[in-house]
Amino acid sequence: MGSLGAAGKMRRADRLGRLLYTLISERGEATGATLARRAVALYGGLDETGRLRFFDILAREFSPDRDAVLAAANAYHADPSAAHLAALQRVAEPPRQEVFRRMNMAPGGTAALVQLRRDLVDAIHAHPELAAVDHDLTHLLSSWFNRGFLELKRIDWSTPASVLEKLIEYEAVHEIRGFPDLKRRLERDRRCFAFFHPALPGEPLIFVEVAFVNELPSEVAPILALDGAVGDPRKARCAVFYSITSCQAGLKGISFGNFLIKQVAEDLHAELPNLKTFATLSPVPGLRRWAQQRLGDRVPSERSQLESLAAWYLTREWREGHALDPVARFHLGNGARLYRLNWLADVSPRGLRQSAGMMVNYLYRLDEVERNHEMYVRDQRVVASRELQRLAGESVLAQASVRRK
Amino acid sequence: MGSLGAAGKMRRADRLGRLLYTLISERGEATGATLARRAVALYGGLDETGRLRFFDILAREFSPDRDAVLAAANAYHADPSAAHLAALQRVAEPPRQEVFRRMNMAPGGTAALVQLRRDLVDAIHAHPELAAVDHDLTHLLSSWFNRGFLELKRIDWSTPASVLEKLIEYEAVHEIRGFPDLKRRLERDRRCFAFFHPALPGEPLIFVEVAFVNELPSEVAPILALDGAVGDPRKARCAVFYSITSCQAGLKGISFGNFLIKQVAEDLHAELPNLKTFATLSPVPGLRRWAQQRLGDRVPSERSQLESLAAWYLTREWREGHALDPVARFHLGNGARLYRLNWLADVSPRGLRQSAGMMVNYLYRLDEVERNHEMYVRDQRVVASRELQRLAGESVLAQASVRRK
Amino acid sequence: MGSLGAAGKMRRADRLGRLLYTLISERGEATGATLARRAVALYGGLDETGRLRFFDILAREFSPDRDAVLAAANAYHADPSAAHLAALQRVAEPPRQEVFRRMNMAPGGTAALVQLRRDLVDAIHAHPELAAVDHDLTHLLSSWFNRGFLELKRIDWSTPASVLEKLIEYEAVHEIRGFPDLKRRLERDRRCFAFFHPALPGEPLIFVEVAFVNELPSEVAPILALDGAVGDPRKARCAVFYSITSCQAGLKGISFGNFLIKQVAEDLHAELPNLKTFATLSPVPGLRRWAQQRLGDRVPSERSQLESLAAWYLTREWREGHALDPVARFHLGNGARLYRLNWLADVSPRGLRQSAGMMVNYLYRLDEVERNHEMYVRDQRVVASRELQRLAGESVLAQASVRRK
Amino acid sequence: MGSLGAAGKMRRADRLGRLLYTLISERGEATGATLARRAVALYGGLDETGRLRFFDILAREFSPDRDAVLAAANAYHADPSAAHLAALQRVAEPPRQEVFRRMNMAPGGTAALVQLRRDLVDAIHAHPELAAVDHDLTHLLSSWFNRGFLELKRIDWSTPASVLEKLIEYEAVHEIRGFPDLKRRLERDRRCFAFFHPALPGEPLIFVEVAFVNELPSEVAPILALDGAVGDPRKARCAVFYSITSCQAGLKGISFGNFLIKQVAEDLHAELPNLKTFATLSPVPGLRRWAQQRLGDRVPSERSQLESLAAWYLTREWREGHALDPVARFHLGNGARLYRLNWLADVSPRGLRQSAGMMVNYLYRLDEVERNHEMYVRDQRVVASRELQRLAGESVLAQASVRRK
Repeated sequence: MGSLGAAGKMRRADRLGRLLYTLISERGEATGATLARRAVALYGGLDETGRLRFFDILAREFSPDRDAVLAAANAYHADPSAAHLAALQRVAEPPRQEVFRRMNMAPGGTAALVQLRRDLVDAIHAHPELAAVDHDLTHLLSSWFNRGFLELKRIDWSTPASVLEKLIEYEAVHEIRGFPDLKRRLERDRRCFAFFHPALPGEPLIFVEVAFVNELPSEVAPILALDGAVGDPRKARCAVFYSITSCQAGLKGISFGNFLIKQVAEDLHAELPNLKTFATLSPVPGLRRWAQQRLGDRVPSERSQLESLAAWYLTREWREGHALDPVARFHLGNGARLYRLNWLADVSPRGLRQSAGMMVNYLYRLDEVERNHEMYVRDQRVVASRELQRLAGESVLAQASVRRK
Repeated sequence: MGSLGAAGKMRRADRLGRLLYTLISERGEATGATLARRAVALYGGLDETGRLRFFDILAREFSPDRDAVLAAANAYHADPSAAHLAALQRVAEPPRQEVFRRMNMAPGGTAALVQLRRDLVDAIHAHPELAAVDHDLTHLLSSWFNRGFLELKRIDWSTPASVLEKLIEYEAVHEIRGFPDLKRRLERDRRCFAFFHPALPGEPLIFVEVAFVNELPSEVAPILALDGAVGDPRKARCAVFYSITSCQAGLKGISFGNFLIKQVAEDLHAELPNLKTFATLSPVPGLRRWAQQRLGDRVPSERSQLESLAAWYLTREWREGHALDPVARFHLGNGARLYRLNWLADVSPRGLRQSAGMMVNYLYRLDEVERNHEMYVRDQRVVASRELQRLAGESVLAQASVRRK
Repeated sequence: MGSLGAAGKMRRADRLGRLLYTLISERGEATGATLARRAVALYGGLDETGRLRFFDILAREFSPDRDAVLAAANAYHADPSAAHLAALQRVAEPPRQEVFRRMNMAPGGTAALVQLRRDLVDAIHAHPELAAVDHDLTHLLSSWFNRGFLELKRIDWSTPASVLEKLIEYEAVHEIRGFPDLKRRLERDRRCFAFFHPALPGEPLIFVEVAFVNELPSEVAPILALDGAVGDPRKARCAVFYSITSCQAGLKGISFGNFLIKQVAEDLHAELPNLKTFATLSPVPGLRRWAQQRLGDRVPSERSQLESLAAWYLTREWREGHALDPVARFHLGNGARLYRLNWLADVSPRGLRQSAGMMVNYLYRLDEVERNHEMYVRDQRVVASRELQRLAGESVLAQASVRRK
Repeated sequence: MGSLGAAGKMRRADRLGRLLYTLISERGEATGATLARRAVALYGGLDETGRLRFFDILAREFSPDRDAVLAAANAYHADPSAAHLAALQRVAEPPRQEVFRRMNMAPGGTAALVQLRRDLVDAIHAHPELAAVDHDLTHLLSSWFNRGFLELKRIDWSTPASVLEKLIEYEAVHEIRGFPDLKRRLERDRRCFAFFHPALPGEPLIFVEVAFVNELPSEVAPILALDGAVGDPRKARCAVFYSITSCQAGLKGISFGNFLIKQVAEDLHAELPNLKTFATLSPVPGLRRWAQQRLGDRVPSERSQLESLAAWYLTREWREGHALDPVARFHLGNGARLYRLNWLADVSPRGLRQSAGMMVNYLYRLDEVERNHEMYVRDQRVVASRELQRLAGESVLAQASVRRK
């Protein structure tokens, strides 16, 4: 694809744009696979400039016609018949959705679209006008990556090396330092599960790492230690979800974690009845930054004060109807219970920098997740242990808030 | 589920209706899989009356709000921003689409929805007001059963009996009379391919049967004969698609045949370079009925006259932009060429009753399907052999049409 | 391989014979696979006359050298050193064993040798001098088909049709009348298991059919009925082995049944703890013939007399250290307990002709098979229920034997 | 199995010894699997002392009875009938062979026997009297690991990590330094194949590494370089077997390499017709040691002299009918042609220490291996290139030998 000048790259993007019209025409139906292949190949040959041009074409030329939309909306308003509704949907659906559906027909089409979304997400920061394109592609991918189409697979040492290599590459919480490190995480006192999609074989979408231990852990180092003794899973009482990683930047915003954790908890519960506790050992990644913004120089460094502050942060700080901390938001939204703060639980550079060294156990009790979730969503209340609530009440911010009243 | 009275059955449908509201709420997101399972189970327990009630709820309560649609359309018309477009799509998409997406999350959810669509198609004859629900479900299934997600599999004698049994059950063109009959159709001078979807394992969506022969066949009996000698596929010059069957009533209207035939032709071409001709041996199922409606008592019974009539029917009779004969419509729409009429090619009761015993060869030349398709779609012209055109010109209808001028 | 005259066929057998010398030479080691392929192909092209000639060559030319054997035996007798023992084994092992081992290296070699054994078994009746060849091949096959190399596989409706077809063909106890009949035998209240060998993929060696029922059955018709209701395996109390068939004539005399029944009983016991009884419903195939030989015209036809006679036959009639009845010999040798006689249990033509309509339940109690087996082998005593013993004691033969004393 | 004293360990070995008598009795036939399991477990619990005791029991108590052997030999000598031959084989076969066959019936039995052989090989140096036991076990394993039972599998980056880890561990020629190193050896311009046995799943028996290059390589470093550009296999003209490793110490002396190389060469030839040359790049591991023994202080260090010496060593030095160098013995015995000496081809510490830095290309021409092999075996002549022959003729030893005449 070598050395095209800038103009040549633009021409290629334009050629792809024109191809799309044929692709979504009736003619495209008959020769769909061939045209789709061509479109996917053309896209793959674009550089950043070409991709921007192409996204721009998608945004400008493949949006719904506003006159047609208004006419259909008026007709549907006057008479909400099936025919009027069908007509409305036909004109209200952006034609680029059909573009994406046709491109998906090419061999490797799904992977190409996930990559396209990734490029789009990268581009959108500087080009917010592409949000509409992203909205459409996300809508489609979200439908295609519906839970019903995902396969839960156990990852172990007999998994193909090509898949294991990807886990090493993707792991976002506690870095995996090569195959020997990963091997320890796949011993019989550990488990790893991932979701896969049939159209992306060998490509994990999300994975969770579990450790079987005797009691709820208060620090992460023993779990990550390469030389720790391998325990007996049939004797463990506690399953700790100590790492959960979304793998595909191109599927950002499409949530699988909720399903993954619950499915894994259910399956482990059935397989190992000795397991009584399902919990996480999670970072509090927004703590340090929030504290600095909120308190500036007044950030306490003493343990008890810092714990109170963290408790307050986790239970009382909300933004747009969600807990402020992203990890808290995920687990509380899943219906987990905020259970315990662990001081000096992660003293890695990242752990100290983001979470002030603290980690949290979120508890998954399968019989209360529905209730907890509802409290979180409807009442915007965090279900937390008494200890956590007590700590939050002792924070300087609590006192300030009392004083203000 | 036993002996509920009519009222009880209605109550169950209503209960399912109420469950759907929770299912598509944010709460449903956290507890999605559980609720989806419940919804699928409740639906499975409905009888025909209950299903009708449920479809009615879907039609009435889960359609877009017409005021909201009009407001969003006006906003988009005034300012076609990404935000306005997103808002429009949010209100214009019928909420039942989200219902179906959530139900799909249950184990067996996809199969349940395909069954639901089947029930819906059955119901729609008597209840045309359900068309809008069908439109939505079809839209979704069409997206989910995108070619990119289908797996082409060869069916042979080492295929699981449970799958072979389904082919026997589904075969719609030339009845398969038990396993020995099927076995003959899977010998090495025959091939069978089917599309499968990963969420419906072991369930063929469509399958095609191919025979390798030395020359284009003019009758079907030798192909179906149980005791015919088994030929050498490496010496055959012609691959005949002699049967193609769509299996899933619940996927009616979602077309796979086009992809299947072309993919199989391409694959066979690569595997067996000796194959020079790819063609069908197809019925003309609408011929007899059309002739009777058109000519009444004047239907000729003589061979040459009947052939002329069939040629006319296949090349000149259109309805709403498509060839009138359903099989012709399929192959011509795929870009095939109408090649030869075969007199007394299928003398089975069905063959005589529907097609007056005639069969047609449609030719698939991979390098002309695109051009042929375009002629068919754009110019509404059938690409046919000279012989066929000559025959059509000699029919009584041609003469009548000349006379009329 | 067409139309060779008798002389030509002989020449081919001789050619194969000469090839064997190369095959087992050191040169054969380097070019083993090629020569082996040639030998297997040559053998496959022989007709019955050619095979006999070839077997004759194997018998005459590939036996141990008697002088060498005697010399080695003398040396070993004088000094039983490792070297002398190795030398003895080298000369005492018939060279045709190496022939077979080399032939096995060809693709499909194992299948070819199993076929060769089958041909040999057929030939041996008329040519008892081939017994030595058969002895060697059996020795080798017996080692290769060691239990440790067999795979137990469940057969169900998702098994490839090509395998199911073989079960239908091989079934030797209760004829399977086509796929629908077999399907009933694979429903969830039935089980079927088979042993396979990795070198004979898709080729069952032996299979057993099991029915889950509520109580020990006294007739076979309800089990074989096509239209019987399908029961719930989790509620059944009794697993009945109602048919066991050895499939490979070429493996005659190499016993797998013992392992199969015990493995299946163990596995079912673990899977379905509700199962309390593991038993057979077996024919008494030698009964009728034996009774006629023994009693001639005096064979009773009354039920009680016939039952006594059968009881006597099963418990007291021995030949060369084994129970006379072949089925009894198999199950008693496995350590089963003779439990119950069932009058009119199999009224099929074969059931009446061979077993006088009677069937027997042999009980497999996993904790007593070792003890029972020892009694059978060491003490030549049949472990039978009291009822059976009482019946045997009442037979005319018992009275005759008393009278004789 | 803890802290048994020496006496306790002996008792366990003795217990195992007694168990064997039951195991090979007729009773053992009925309860085979159970007893076999017990024997395998007992063996696994022995320490070195216990194992020695056990091997000693096998050697003393499970050898053929010399009187019985002599009697049977006499009978066979007098009348070589089938019955006499069968009797001879029965008494001449050491009963420990049946012991091993029975132990193989336990789950994991084959793996246990391969381990037992490994222990035996270790013990035999200090206890040569165990050679007879080893002879028997080798005979059996050699029959069980017959080429016909082996599966050739391609190893690539999608192979389970547990298997790849074993390659890293076993590699004996050019050390694999972890997964990234192995990954480079599995790119598309490389190939790796291994033999597996169905009873040892996931356990490679032998593997070969192949590099696709444009011309016959004269040094190994570029092949092993981690950062070398990845070539296009469809353009390569030469397949180089640059490493071949036998993995199982317990299968020592049972040769698979011959089959492996030829099979791989055949398969690659069929897949990639561009490949014209199949050759090795092999060490000369005995060169340095031989030269020192032969020439002492007079070993030349100059290139031309050393090359002549190596050529002489490879072509003229024989021991007991075989080339002296073990690698030469292997490839020449396979029918390869000695093609080229490569000076400074392997400058790794081992390469310098064993092979004086030299490597050799052996050529595998499929159409001449049979002829070459025969020359090697029958005429004890090495098929070598003219250049090699010339070099050998120029060596000091050639001159010495001339002088001697």
